[in-house]
Amino acid sequence: MKLIRFGELNKEKAGVLIDGKAYDVSAIGEDYNEQFFETGGVSRLQAFVESNKGNLPAIAEGTRLGSPIARPSKLVCIGLNYANHAKETGAALPPEPVVFMKSTTALCGPFDNIMIPRNSVKTDWEVELAVVIGKKASYVEEAEALDYVAGYALHNDVSEREFQLERNGTWDKGKGCDTFAPIGPWLVTKDEVADVDNLRLWLTVNDKKMQDGNTSDFIFKIPFLVSYVSQFMTLLPGDVISTGTPAGVGLGMNPQVYLKAGDVVTLGIDGLGEATQHVIAWKK
Amino acid sequence: MKLIRFGELNKEKAGVLIDGKAYDVSAIGEDYNEQFFETGGVSRLQAFVESNKGNLPAIAEGTRLGSPIARPSKLVCIGLNYANHAKETGAALPPEPVVFMKSTTALCGPFDNIMIPRNSVKTDWEVELAVVIGKKASYVEEAEALDYVAGYALHNDVSEREFQLERNGTWDKGKGCDTFAPIGPWLVTKDEVADVDNLRLWLTVNDKKMQDGNTSDFIFKIPFLVSYVSQFMTLLPGDVISTGTPAGVGLGMNPQVYLKAGDVVTLGIDGLGEATQHVIAWKK
Repeated sequence: MKLIRFGELNKEKAGVLIDGKAYDVSAIGEDYNEQFFETGGVSRLQAFVESNKGNLPAIAEGTRLGSPIARPSKLVCIGLNYANHAKETGAALPPEPVVFMKSTTALCGPFDNIMIPRNSVKTDWEVELAVVIGKKASYVEEAEALDYVAGYALHNDVSEREFQLERNGTWDKGKGCDTFAPIGPWLVTKDEVADVDNLRLWLTVNDKKMQDGNTSDFIFKIPFLVSYVSQFMTLLPGDVISTGTPAGVGLGMNPQVYLKAGDVVTLGIDGLGEATQHVIAWKK
Repeated sequence: MKLIRFGELNKEKAGVLIDGKAYDVSAIGEDYNEQFFETGGVSRLQAFVESNKGNLPAIAEGTRLGSPIARPSKLVCIGLNYANHAKETGAALPPEPVVFMKSTTALCGPFDNIMIPRNSVKTDWEVELAVVIGKKASYVEEAEALDYVAGYALHNDVSEREFQLERNGTWDKGKGCDTFAPIGPWLVTKDEVADVDNLRLWLTVNDKKMQDGNTSDFIFKIPFLVSYVSQFMTLLPGDVISTGTPAGVGLGMNPQVYLKAGDVVTLGIDGLGEATQHVIAWKK
């Protein structure tokens, strides 16, 4: 299934995408949140959709899409998980995954604007595959890790490089600004993704191709990452692990290129849909 | 007021401490969470307590205390905010605050056990003053920052030093293990704290004094920290900013000393109460 959330920010309702068309399933009375995933919501939703097929209300074209998951307990991110991206940033290949966290207040919809933070001069893009956790995961073995995954989504891990790297602190400072985590358009349940280790992902800025990679270049694959992160913190249903970005970010260019108001970022992953974000100047 | 939460883990109820005695106020039908703080819950609670004084059910002695705040959207921490602690860790004095995040799944009660993570050899203690945010804070000015604070609580920012510093990543990896954020016993509303910049804080391990500092040694004071963090991420009601630890952690000793099963950690801050945590070995 392809799960969507639609409507006004922070008031999104549950929907699904069937054969490319969006339908309102808010009659199930649930949101795609921790409780939903924890209690077998995906199966419940599947049953609801099957028994109501043909009678689901269509969602009007032009309706805003929100993040396909409600605010999770955490957004965990993996740094430098594609060899070519590690190289462009000047970092050594990591012996084990780099882990950092994004404030969940950064979460927004896949077509929402990216707002440049106040005093930012280095706002950058990162197309990533986000893993959505399906059940509570603590000290999970790699061989069983996929049992803990609900599905996958497209994510732009927007990053302020000066805040991240030059402001005396961990990377978290440059990762959690408002609008820095557009996720979606869809949460695609794992049964619909034939080979998550062979998906093309790409990103353009103003129609210029900046990133063009493939998850086959992962240094650390998804089962390893889920297992690994679960050794350090308990993952809850609905939590996100974003799996890192391939080469082609603004930080890696010579000269470096960063986002400015008016820019248009478009990104996509095979089977997980496409998203477009307009960049706007900071406003309170 | 002094807010407490009591009862079984993840099923805590709301309570208050009055003249050293704990009372059940769960009849208000609210938990001390984002919505509570966002909608003026502290004033509502105050009115409830006043109109029910003398009739509030007492909480039985020996009842478990949970964290005095329900799981927040985030636990933000400040590193190296006491000059003497920066020195003991070998770090330079920070030109601006070090910011990192703890997984909120680390949250536990002030008398709960600290569980050594699997494969940990360097689990350490850090007594800290935690600031609880009272209303949504984004790009807040330092002069107005205290308007965004609901109150203060005692926090042990338990840390695994190998995970934090030697495992190739940001500090987050060593900060968010289960039981690594015992908070409480109380959330003390800010009106009850006369001078937050002059509070003694201390910690013992097996009755041996390890930390004995004073918030007068803050490098960055609370209004600055709230304002500063709000430049990088939006703080929500109920969120926590933990303000760093004074000298005396195990990492800073020669030879280094770390927690082991059977150890007893006791800590306190003037006016914010005391807490005791027994250290236990890892178990699934």
